[in-house]
Parts: sequence; C-alpha cells; structure tokens
Amino acid sequence: MNQNINNIAVLTSGGDAPGMNACIRAVVRTGIYNGANMFGVKQGYQGLIDDNIIPMDARSVSNIIHLGGTILKTARCKPFMTEEGMQTAYNHLKARNIDGLVVIGGDGTFTGAKIFSEKFGVKVMGVPGTIDNDLFGSDFTLGYDTAMNTVIEAIDKIRDTADAHDRLFFIEVMGRDSGCIALRSGVASGAEAVLLPEKQTSIDELVNQLEIGALTKKSSSIVIVAEGHKAGGAYDIAKKVKERFNHYDTKVTILGHLQRGGSPSSADRILGSRLGFAAVNELFKGTTAAMVGLRGNDVKVTSLEEALTKHSFKLEDDLLEMTKVLSI
Amino acid sequence: MNQNINNIAVLTSGGDAPGMNACIRAVVRTGIYNGANMFGVKQGYQGLIDDNIIPMDARSVSNIIHLGGTILKTARCKPFMTEEGMQTAYNHLKARNIDGLVVIGGDGTFTGAKIFSEKFGVKVMGVPGTIDNDLFGSDFTLGYDTAMNTVIEAIDKIRDTADAHDRLFFIEVMGRDSGCIALRSGVASGAEAVLLPEKQTSIDELVNQLEIGALTKKSSSIVIVAEGHKAGGAYDIAKKVKERFNHYDTKVTILGHLQRGGSPSSADRILGSRLGFAAVNELFKGTTAAMVGLRGNDVKVTSLEEALTKHSFKLEDDLLEMTKVLSI
Amino acid sequence: MNQNINNIAVLTSGGDAPGMNACIRAVVRTGIYNGANMFGVKQGYQGLIDDNIIPMDARSVSNIIHLGGTILKTARCKPFMTEEGMQTAYNHLKARNIDGLVVIGGDGTFTGAKIFSEKFGVKVMGVPGTIDNDLFGSDFTLGYDTAMNTVIEAIDKIRDTADAHDRLFFIEVMGRDSGCIALRSGVASGAEAVLLPEKQTSIDELVNQLEIGALTKKSSSIVIVAEGHKAGGAYDIAKKVKERFNHYDTKVTILGHLQRGGSPSSADRILGSRLGFAAVNELFKGTTAAMVGLRGNDVKVTSLEEALTKHSFKLEDDLLEMTKVLSI
Amino acid sequence: MNQNINNIAVLTSGGDAPGMNACIRAVVRTGIYNGANMFGVKQGYQGLIDDNIIPMDARSVSNIIHLGGTILKTARCKPFMTEEGMQTAYNHLKARNIDGLVVIGGDGTFTGAKIFSEKFGVKVMGVPGTIDNDLFGSDFTLGYDTAMNTVIEAIDKIRDTADAHDRLFFIEVMGRDSGCIALRSGVASGAEAVLLPEKQTSIDELVNQLEIGALTKKSSSIVIVAEGHKAGGAYDIAKKVKERFNHYDTKVTILGHLQRGGSPSSADRILGSRLGFAAVNELFKGTTAAMVGLRGNDVKVTSLEEALTKHSFKLEDDLLEMTKVLSI
Repeated sequence: MNQNINNIAVLTSGGDAPGMNACIRAVVRTGIYNGANMFGVKQGYQGLIDDNIIPMDARSVSNIIHLGGTILKTARCKPFMTEEGMQTAYNHLKARNIDGLVVIGGDGTFTGAKIFSEKFGVKVMGVPGTIDNDLFGSDFTLGYDTAMNTVIEAIDKIRDTADAHDRLFFIEVMGRDSGCIALRSGVASGAEAVLLPEKQTSIDELVNQLEIGALTKKSSSIVIVAEGHKAGGAYDIAKKVKERFNHYDTKVTILGHLQRGGSPSSADRILGSRLGFAAVNELFKGTTAAMVGLRGNDVKVTSLEEALTKHSFKLEDDLLEMTKVLSI
Repeated sequence: MNQNINNIAVLTSGGDAPGMNACIRAVVRTGIYNGANMFGVKQGYQGLIDDNIIPMDARSVSNIIHLGGTILKTARCKPFMTEEGMQTAYNHLKARNIDGLVVIGGDGTFTGAKIFSEKFGVKVMGVPGTIDNDLFGSDFTLGYDTAMNTVIEAIDKIRDTADAHDRLFFIEVMGRDSGCIALRSGVASGAEAVLLPEKQTSIDELVNQLEIGALTKKSSSIVIVAEGHKAGGAYDIAKKVKERFNHYDTKVTILGHLQRGGSPSSADRILGSRLGFAAVNELFKGTTAAMVGLRGNDVKVTSLEEALTKHSFKLEDDLLEMTKVLSI
Repeated sequence: MNQNINNIAVLTSGGDAPGMNACIRAVVRTGIYNGANMFGVKQGYQGLIDDNIIPMDARSVSNIIHLGGTILKTARCKPFMTEEGMQTAYNHLKARNIDGLVVIGGDGTFTGAKIFSEKFGVKVMGVPGTIDNDLFGSDFTLGYDTAMNTVIEAIDKIRDTADAHDRLFFIEVMGRDSGCIALRSGVASGAEAVLLPEKQTSIDELVNQLEIGALTKKSSSIVIVAEGHKAGGAYDIAKKVKERFNHYDTKVTILGHLQRGGSPSSADRILGSRLGFAAVNELFKGTTAAMVGLRGNDVKVTSLEEALTKHSFKLEDDLLEMTKVLSI
Repeated sequence: MNQNINNIAVLTSGGDAPGMNACIRAVVRTGIYNGANMFGVKQGYQGLIDDNIIPMDARSVSNIIHLGGTILKTARCKPFMTEEGMQTAYNHLKARNIDGLVVIGGDGTFTGAKIFSEKFGVKVMGVPGTIDNDLFGSDFTLGYDTAMNTVIEAIDKIRDTADAHDRLFFIEVMGRDSGCIALRSGVASGAEAVLLPEKQTSIDELVNQLEIGALTKKSSSIVIVAEGHKAGGAYDIAKKVKERFNHYDTKVTILGHLQRGGSPSSADRILGSRLGFAAVNELFKGTTAAMVGLRGNDVKVTSLEEALTKHSFKLEDDLLEMTKVLSI
C-alpha cells in the first residue's frame, strides 16, 4: 500500500484554529507508526522558504492534543505564491527527500498546495482547518465547533448582564464573507436577530423585530452581527438602531480574536485526529492534490480542484427560519 | 398545511440530557408561532398519568436554552407501559383536546410513544435525547456532544495530575451497552487504551500495550473504561493490571453522573432547536409515530418502527484503529 | 437579639456583579429562618419608587446561587437621589411595614443608602457588590474574583492565537478609575506590560519594554490596558506603538461587558452568602448605616460613613514590581 | 541586600496543585532578574537524591502560568527523610554550588525542608502548595481556590441531573483530615448537608435534615461528604440513609483526582506568582527555614518551626451555621 512515501512534512497555514495541534499529532504519529520519517515546517509556507523544517518524533507531539493554537505556528505567506518562492521551498524539501506534505489551513492554503503539487510533483494532502467553516468538501472545518462554543459562552455571559439591566446588546462575531458563525450562534444563544453577510436586513426590519420583542415583554435583546454585514459593523448598526428604538439601553461587544483560541472541543479533537490520520494514509496510497473532509460521519476525499471551485457553504434554510420563529 | 392540530404537549422522558431545554423551547415557540396551544407534561409519562400538565406560553421557555437538565423534569415510568396507564394518560390529554405530542428521550421513550400513538390515535413525534448516542435515525443524539466535552475536560484535569506524578489512571465513563462515549473520549483525550463493551480486550493485551508506552518513555498513561466492559468495572480492571504492571502508581476515577449535566454545547443547542422545530412542523403536516434526527447536516424523518428495529450505532473503524496508532 | 425587625427588603443596584444572586438567596433565607417576612425590590432604587416590591419565600431563591446577573435586576436611578424620590420610596416601604433594607451595590448605592437611612430611620445594611473591587471596608468586592477568572480565560484564548502568529495584542479590560483588574489580570496572565489609570506610562517606556521582549525571543506579547489609562483606550495606544515597533503584527481586543457575566466563582458564591447572612444578622442586632465586608478571612462591619470617605484600594507594591520582573 | 546567594534550585513535592507552575515561573524569573543562576529539581526530593537537576533560563518557564500540574513533576520521597538520603541530596546541590532552595508543597515537604536546612546550612524557603488548605501561615494554600472551583462546577452539573430526576446525591470530595473543601463547597453549591471529619453527624440528624427539605418541597438534595468523615465514605453513608429515607432515588459520586487538576484560577496564579517572587527575595535577604504565605492581602513570612507546630485551619463558625440556615 505504501507508495514509497518515506518522508513526510506537515505545516499549518493561514489563520490558526483549535484542533490544529490534534491534527499535527495524528499526522506525525500515523507517519511514524507506518515507518515514515516525519518533519514539521514552522510558520506555514514561510518555513518552507526559510528552511525552517524540524524532524519530529512521537514524543514531540505529546500533550498537545488539548492545546489551542498550533505548535508549528502559522503565517500568511505571499512569497510562496511566486515561482521563485515555490522553487526555493521545493529545494528545501528535496534536500531532505521529503516526498509527502500535509497542509492544514483554508482555501488560500489549498490554492498554494494545488499549484505546488502540480508544478513539483510533491504529493500533497490538505486538511480543512479554519474556524470559518467555509470550505467545500467537509461538513465542518477544524476549529469551527470550538469557536462556536467560545462564542455562545461569551454570549451567555453577556446575556446575564443584558437581563440584569434590560439592555439591548449588539455582538459582533467573525465571518467576513460567511454568516455561518453568526447564524448558528444566533440560534444557539437564542438571539433576537441575526445580521448576515449573505442577506440584506434593513434597519427598518430590525427595529420592527425588536419592537415586537419589547411589546411581548422580553427583558433584554441580543442581536448578532457578522463582521461582514452590508450595513456596517456592530457599532454602526447599533448607532442607527439607537436613533429609532429606545426601550433599552444599547451596548456593543466585538468578540474579536477571542474566537480563535481555546482548548479544542471534543468534536474538533476527533475531527483533527481523524483527518490527520486519513491524510497520511491517503499519501501512502498515492493520493495527491486532494483534501480529506467529514461528510456525515465519514471521512471522504475530495480533489483540491473540486474543493476550490465549488461553493462551500449554504446557510441552512431551517436555521434561517428558526431565528425568527424561536425568538418570539 | 396544518392538519387541524391545535393543542400540543411536550415531555422529556428517560435519562436527562443537555439540550432538552433548548428542544422544549423550540417545540413550545414553534407551536405558538403557528397558532397552537402548548402544554408541558411534568416528569415524563408519569405526568400524563398524574395529570401533571401545564399550559406553556412563549415566556415560559425564556432563558432556558443554556441550562442543563430539563425544566419539565424526567422519570422512568413503568405504569405507562400498561393498558390502564395508557388509557389514563389518554384521558388526561383528551380532557384538554391535546392532539399532538412531542416526546424527547431514548428508545424506551420511543417504544412507549409508538404503542400509544397506535392505540389511541394521538399524533406523536419523537426527538432523540440521550447522552449515549445509541439511537438509529440520527447521527447524533441530543446531549452526546455536551457529554463528550464534559468527559474530555475531566480527563484533561486528570492528565495534569497523572503527568505530575507519573501515574496510570483508569477512568470509567458512561456506556453500559455502547462504547460510543469511551471510544471517542479515548481518541479526543489521547488515551493510551480504551476498553469497550463491544470488544473483548484481555488483561494481557492491555498490559502489553502499557508496557510499550513505558518503554517509549510515556510519563503517564490513561485507560478509558466503558461502564459495561466485559472484564468488569474500572476498579476490577485496575486491580488486575496492577498485579502485573508496576511502572506507575495506579488510580481509578469514576466520572458518574457528572457526565449528564452541564450547560449544553453549541452543537446540542442547535440540534435541540432544529429537532424541536422540525418535530412540531411534522405534527402540523400530519406525520405521526416517527422521529426527527440529524443525518449529515440535514434533519430527516424516520418512522419509530424503523428506529426501534434497526441497530443504532456501529463503532467507526478508523476510530478503533486510531486508538492504537495515535497513542504511540 | 432581634430588635423588632420583622420585615426586610433586599435590592441590587448599580452595575450587576456575579455573586449577587448568591447574596440575595442568603439574605432571604437568613431572614426567613429567623422569622422575618422577606421582600425583593426590582431594579434597585427605581423599584422602591415604582412600588415594584414582591414578597419572597425560601423557594423563590432556589437554584439561583450559581447564576450570574441578578434575579432582582438592577438599574442606576437618579430620581432616588432627590428628596421627593426618597419620600416616595419610604412610603412604599412603610405601606408594607418594611423596617430593614439590604442594598447590594457599589459606592453610588451606598451613598443613597446612607442618606435614606439617616432621613427616614429605615435600618439599612450595605453589601459591596461590584466587579471593580474599589470599595473601602472589604478586601474583595462581590463579583471581582469571577471577573478576574473571566478575564484571564479570555486572555489565555488570545495568547493561543498570539503565539501561533507571533503577534502583539492589546487587551482592554474594565477599570475606569481603578487598575485593580488590569494589574491582577496582567500578573495572572503573564502579560508583558500593564497600563493603569493610577500610573503614567509613556509610549517610550512601553516600546522599550516590548523591544527587550523581542530581543529575548518572546514569540508573542500581550499588553493589558485599563479602560481609564491616561494615554487613551487600547486602540489609541496600539496605533501609537505600531508606528514605532514592528516586530509583530498588532491586534486589539476590547473585552467589554463579557467581564460582568458568568456563573460566580466559588469564592464569590461564598462571599455573597457570608455577606448576605451577616447583613441580615446585623439588622437583627440593630446595626444600621453600615456595610459588611471581608477582612482577611473574617466578616467585619464598617460604617457607611467610613466606607464612603476613606480611599478604597491601593495597588499592591509587590504586584506592580512583579509585572516587570516576571515578564522577562 | 543579596546575601551572596548565587545559585538557587526549586522543586515541587507532595501532591500536585494548580498554581505550582505559576510559582515555579516566578521563582525562576525573580532569580534570573536578580542575577542568580537557577535550577529545577525533578520529582521533588527524589530528584535531589537522583541528581535529576536541570538548569533553567527565563524561556524554560514560558507559557506555563496557565497549566495545571507541575512541569518539574512531584513525588513523595521516603529516602530523603533518612540521614543518608539528605547527605546525598546535599552533595548534589553542593556540586553545583546551589546555596538556596525553594520547596513548594505541604507539611511533609516543610518537615523535610526544616531538617535539611538545619543539618546542612542550605537556605530553604517554603511555599504552601496543596489543594487541602490545611497549613498554618497562609490564609489560603496554592491550588485550593482552583480545586474549589472545580468542585462546584462538578456539583453544578450534578445538580442539573439531580433536579431533573428529583434525586438525592452524595458527593465525596477531598479532605481526609480537613473539612475545608467540603464545608466551603457545600456553602458555594447550596448543598443540603455537609459531613465533615471535624464534626460528628449522626445518620439520624442527617435523615431529619433531609426530611425537612422533602417537606418543604425541595426537588432534589445534595449531601457533600469529606473523604475522612467518621461515619465512612459516601457509599457507606448513602446506603445507611437509603434504608430510612426514600423520598428520592439515591446516587453517589466520588470526585477523586479530578479535583487536583485544571488550569489554575486567577487567584491561584497570582498567589503562586506572589509567593514565588517573595520566596526568592527572602533568600536574597538571608531568610531561611521559613515559609511565605498570604495573610489578608499581604505576603507574610512565618518560620517553618511555627508553621509546623501550630494548628492550621479552623472551620469558620459562620460557614458552619450557614450550611443549616441557607439550605432551608
């Protein structure tokens, strides 16, 4: 089964996401268990260019499964997207006879991986690692479940104080292009309204909805705003609403980078472990320029070609309707 | 669309599970939003027999989405399984013109629901609520994700002290017939071995595995034991292992009822909300003697007949192999 | 011992703080245990004016000890500070023969309590409840310990992502006049620098400190900024630092109202219970216009006169020095 | 001020406690900041005997302030208590010119430290590190606050399921000789009864108390049992109570080693940092055979002589009374 893959490197790239360490651990140990030599690349593609590549043994990934962030660090790296950058990267891999590469990251990461594998013949497998859950080929991306729990724990805390004071809170969550975190955290926290980048919601509509809540004696209201909502950030929206709706005092919270960190949830540790395990096994089978993802409860392989061209995520219709029905 | 369902009751039955309150909230509000009168039954089927049935309005389920347990309370109720018990229950529903019933629970709950709906013509929808994740018809049951997070947080804490002392810990988790919690928590916590009710593991095999870990300089080891493992509870197994393996001091922890409680995870709040919403909508469509469940990322309807006769859960092959490969 | 105090009311006022519910529970049950009739006032002093006063029995405070916020709600109330407002409030108490009042809040709350008790002869006891820890008469105020844990959990999460990316983070915490949260959270999170309202720190000094960290190969840096620091909010400071220090990418997080909520820590539940218990016992002894607080491990009584005139909080010298020494 | 202390070692001994890593970090960095060479001893006194002593620089304690357990590991070590053991230990210190030693642990640790410092003239400072909070010389010991939070979070979870089922739970917490954790966790979790090693409670009394709760319509009851209670462990007591009290179904949970782990609370990180900082500064001043502890909000020095002969902990009278009054 092993297609003469003897030396495998792993890197994390793009924004960090909880579960990346669980995945690195699985990659390293699955490789070692099957007789390969394993390497870690520091700071994503930048480490390939800088020759920042270290050997990794089974103990090097001990006691990391529960840690947030990534022990290999991550970075965004423009030089890698040039021909010269890729050549340098390839030379550094070749010097160590590294013939397999696992990249953990988002679509920017996958775009680089696809070109690199095509040009230089290095076998590359991708693992979807981003809290945004915006990749085709996996129902869920690594880090999304943890980020969701972080967001709702934060909203729960804010609800305590919103209720104590009869306040209206605007809470901005991550998601420049995707309302995935906003929609789901809105449902999970019982928010009164959710503003999404995929959907136009006028200030009129929003104020009407809040008026109804006030009439039916809601003691506080929470509006979730995705970063990328057309009407502007949470501060802008709050200001506009305030001009026309004054049943409650209005406050704004921006959750920010808080959402990226934290010990990975059980689901993310399992997902990271399964995908890392599968990615290395696929390399041994000779697969390349593909990604592993979760579909239902099974791990599936999708070509990077398909992953990068198909649209990733559609907001679930029932969830959209539920934000209205369940917040009465 | 509304098949003349005007009065709907909801109850929780069997063991409690985090996310039940999110589901109750969704049931009540979806019903009210669509014009139905809503009722809550206290203590599961027992409340039907005792006529412990209360009207519920939209405010009665405010601020419960994040709470563990169930505001309706739950119980196991043998009298309901008799003809007399069911007749009494039916009379109490009839007195209020209740023509739809949502039951949240496990397979015992569904068995009762199926018979009741057949005998008395009450339209009944089931929602899979149990931390054991052992029902057909849903990839995940309500409460399972939260229980998994509770378990791994506990194991993380125990790992701290295991490492500090170079100790071997046996941790018993729930699962009398199903190794679902044990297998997944083993993978998610990086346990050195997992003992499952579905699989014979001899003390010999276990000791061998631990010896290898000791040779490769693991500083501590954790063995997860499902309640129902053939070789006995965690205390028995620990005793037998201790007789033959003494690299480390040995300790036992039984997680117990801790695993049932806690604020539901984001995934369980969303699951409870989606399934409650769907269950009521199915009643309005005229569906009966069926359950709603999650398949992939979609809500699907399964007849109780099918749910109760098909086998529920198969341990994932890749996870079984990973417990060995990833703990090197 | 009971000085004919038969009817006691309790209210929460000012900003809400975790532990207020534990305190309300203790007040109500201690009163009932000793034969008094107990009342809750909604929304602080506003509820006294609006006659929003409800009877409370032992069950009315069941299952609230672990909840953040306050079941009695809170508000800031200017009308109470007028003679007319106080007279109205007094009339509403008198109508129910309420002769004892426990107020849970900060110094604004205590100022009102002192005047009210002097003018109308109602016996009043104060409990220090504010996350700011800025009151004389108690080593710690109710809610401070929980807020501290919330802050460091948030910083821990941000540290994950800061490390993964070699970033410099500016984190703004509460404390307009008091650096208590900033100083302690800086020490507890291992922050590289702390900016306090009580202390001038020039951008020069700050940049120097960060340069040293960069030289000694720190992979990320975190600066805690109290809301009230002279040089401006976290955004302003980050901007100024960025102009002169570019070893790392710079990010800002404002923790905001997150810091007010959450289930109270063990220390805050115990503190709330002890102070509520003591406050009612003091009323029975005839004490008035005083507060109860924690000194060392003992509950002590301080007159409101003294509490309101003495300065509350001095930043501990060893902690100030430690922010420099321990972040090398 | 520096009394020619140039080389300092630090070790953790006895049971591990959250906050030990924060303390190790403070010791190492305070030493380095003041020009000393710093060393870490692995596995407590055992490491002194085995010459398991490593140099530590400022980076060796990076990113550990938030970790449970102890990076230096800990052990109980009988050989150190012999003359031969101490001589061997001394030789290993002398070989590195180590003239100062900080020991973090409980009274067993301090007993060894006192003898060692007297016999061999090594300057030794103790830091009270144990979750049991049973040492004289400090209001709180390192790890106690975190353990308390762990315990009440566990009880909160169990309360969810106890309430859902109308159950009576017996929860066993740590404390063989000291009821400190049991008493405080009882108050903080609103337990119906608390059984302490310091106090005889007959089964009769306990049953009476539970009967009153049942009469006043409590829907569930929780009894906290300290490990060392005279009437036997939680299982024994539950069995005896069950024979005579059957309003509820009865369950037992043993929290066990869970209580030792976990990320330290803010209070424990600050306490560990302050005491580590103070211990090293005391060594520089020439202090020996003493411990540093927290009194009120100040760090105080107590001789080991006094710490080991005076009784440590008295259960607070108000807390004892509150367990009765507040659980009505």
